[in-house]
Amino acid sequence: MNSEVLAHVIRGETVESVHRGHIVIMDGDKNVLESLGGPNTVTYFRSACKAFQALPFIAGGGADHFGFAEDEIALACASHSGEPMHTKVAASMLRKAGFAESDLRCGTHLPFNEKEAERLIAAGNRPTQLHNNCSGKHAAMLAFAKHIEADPTSYDSITNPIQQEILKIIAEFAEIPAESIAIGVDGCAAPNFAMPLTAMARCFANLIKPREGLAENVKTACYRIISAMMKFPELIGGTERLDTILMKAAPGKLISKVGADGVWLCGVLPNDQYPSGLAIALKIDDGDDKRARPVVAVELLKRLDILTTGALPEISPMPILNRRGDIVGRIDANISEKIL
Amino acid sequence: MNSEVLAHVIRGETVESVHRGHIVIMDGDKNVLESLGGPNTVTYFRSACKAFQALPFIAGGGADHFGFAEDEIALACASHSGEPMHTKVAASMLRKAGFAESDLRCGTHLPFNEKEAERLIAAGNRPTQLHNNCSGKHAAMLAFAKHIEADPTSYDSITNPIQQEILKIIAEFAEIPAESIAIGVDGCAAPNFAMPLTAMARCFANLIKPREGLAENVKTACYRIISAMMKFPELIGGTERLDTILMKAAPGKLISKVGADGVWLCGVLPNDQYPSGLAIALKIDDGDDKRARPVVAVELLKRLDILTTGALPEISPMPILNRRGDIVGRIDANISEKIL
Repeated sequence: MNSEVLAHVIRGETVESVHRGHIVIMDGDKNVLESLGGPNTVTYFRSACKAFQALPFIAGGGADHFGFAEDEIALACASHSGEPMHTKVAASMLRKAGFAESDLRCGTHLPFNEKEAERLIAAGNRPTQLHNNCSGKHAAMLAFAKHIEADPTSYDSITNPIQQEILKIIAEFAEIPAESIAIGVDGCAAPNFAMPLTAMARCFANLIKPREGLAENVKTACYRIISAMMKFPELIGGTERLDTILMKAAPGKLISKVGADGVWLCGVLPNDQYPSGLAIALKIDDGDDKRARPVVAVELLKRLDILTTGALPEISPMPILNRRGDIVGRIDANISEKIL
Repeated sequence: MNSEVLAHVIRGETVESVHRGHIVIMDGDKNVLESLGGPNTVTYFRSACKAFQALPFIAGGGADHFGFAEDEIALACASHSGEPMHTKVAASMLRKAGFAESDLRCGTHLPFNEKEAERLIAAGNRPTQLHNNCSGKHAAMLAFAKHIEADPTSYDSITNPIQQEILKIIAEFAEIPAESIAIGVDGCAAPNFAMPLTAMARCFANLIKPREGLAENVKTACYRIISAMMKFPELIGGTERLDTILMKAAPGKLISKVGADGVWLCGVLPNDQYPSGLAIALKIDDGDDKRARPVVAVELLKRLDILTTGALPEISPMPILNRRGDIVGRIDANISEKIL
């Protein structure tokens, strides 16, 4: 598996560690403009596919049936930080669809937001499934199951009709046979989907510029998802989270969605600069999400003139601090001479 | 920089991510037996050099001057988890040397031990510098400064005489010129040392089998450090920490010391199987410490017949769990066909 060094971790003046990975950039017509590393490396889509896990539910009328508002559609596509603004919306989705927190099958973890995690512990509480970063996705899956009269108690099984609908739409957007997609179990116990990185980019290209031949209700669902994600960037991630920061830095221009184990997908809406839009797929192949991924994502958006050169200086180059708060190094992207 | 894929992160049956790195194995006479990747890759020694940061203090009589006990010598070489057993010893070291917690310059972080971190937060407390994983090292450095009448308020500066003594001994053990060692600032604000991975292995070879020409007091300090580390494995790391687990799995046979950003050094004492002993150096080049490092370390020790084939099944292959606790994948070392 070819991969390129995409970021250097530098302490003092010495490169201490490196992060490798793969990048593919295509326009909205799915012409590959640039790639680095192994663009056809097969890996899991992870949470970057949440828009497509919500798509058949919305396209099929389920979201409207249960009266889901736009923030609830956004949370269905989110990997949230478990802050009160997130758990509140997840609880509302469950209520509208007639379910309880205990019907979720995503399991629990401490909120990604450290302050919220500490607040919870300090109050003597434990996280509930609402705090799971995928609770919005799972609430929508429960509602989806109810809407198409599938068994809601096994909604997380790949054999459940809702998961088959999701697999079908992901294959359609990725433009690959469903049979070629390897199924794994995600951290939240829902099925997840392995495919070439280029196929993930095609999913996002088809999301921001739905191709001819897609049903009208599917196209409409794409627009609703994009609109909801851009309108509620804080719900997609949370305080200090990459997706939120990027969507707030380029409001109305793009959707950003991380996935676990170093995945990042971005869809840039058609505009004067990119008439058919752009789809960007990044995989840090060691699974890094805290060092190379944010730095490389920001530098890619700068190289593509979607962010200005001076944007987000707190992310790239990323300072390395010691425990006393002094800057002792930095994380630099390593793409400038390689791409675009 | 050449590197080898040392571990596969597998979800379902698909490799989702990979970790690359470098390995060098030498005997106690510093003959390289095996290497993988780029054994001469330059990176920081990080906390794997703590034995050598304590060495000149012990060799110079400082530890005896202040009446440091064997557990206190062990903690000077530790990257501990901030559990009560650790902070207690660090506090005792400070007391014996006539310093207070506020004299430490290592900064604070939550204990590595999650239960202890949660206990602290739940009690409404914040971590002190005693909880810093390097507090034992820093307490010994303060004592070292006092013992040789260096300025204890700048003990963490590379220009302080104690840091120059440390640099000198590290160069001597690494068998490279001190001028060739790049200095960086560690996470705990103390100076750290960049050198080829092979040079780090030589340090450990000279620690477990001190070479001819080293002063007798230095040789004695080596034996005291090794003995202390093996006698108090829980102090070197802590509950569920790699160094502790490995030293408890092969009691009296080896010393194990992790360093941040994917570093692991191991010294196997001379024995029937390895008459001059062994030194093993590992660097996961993306800095991973939770996935590839423990798995590869355990597999290396198995390949070398230092651990039995069935040892530590909870570490290697390492199961990947979802948030509900189901096993959904595994992390496999990828060294068996490449080495030994």
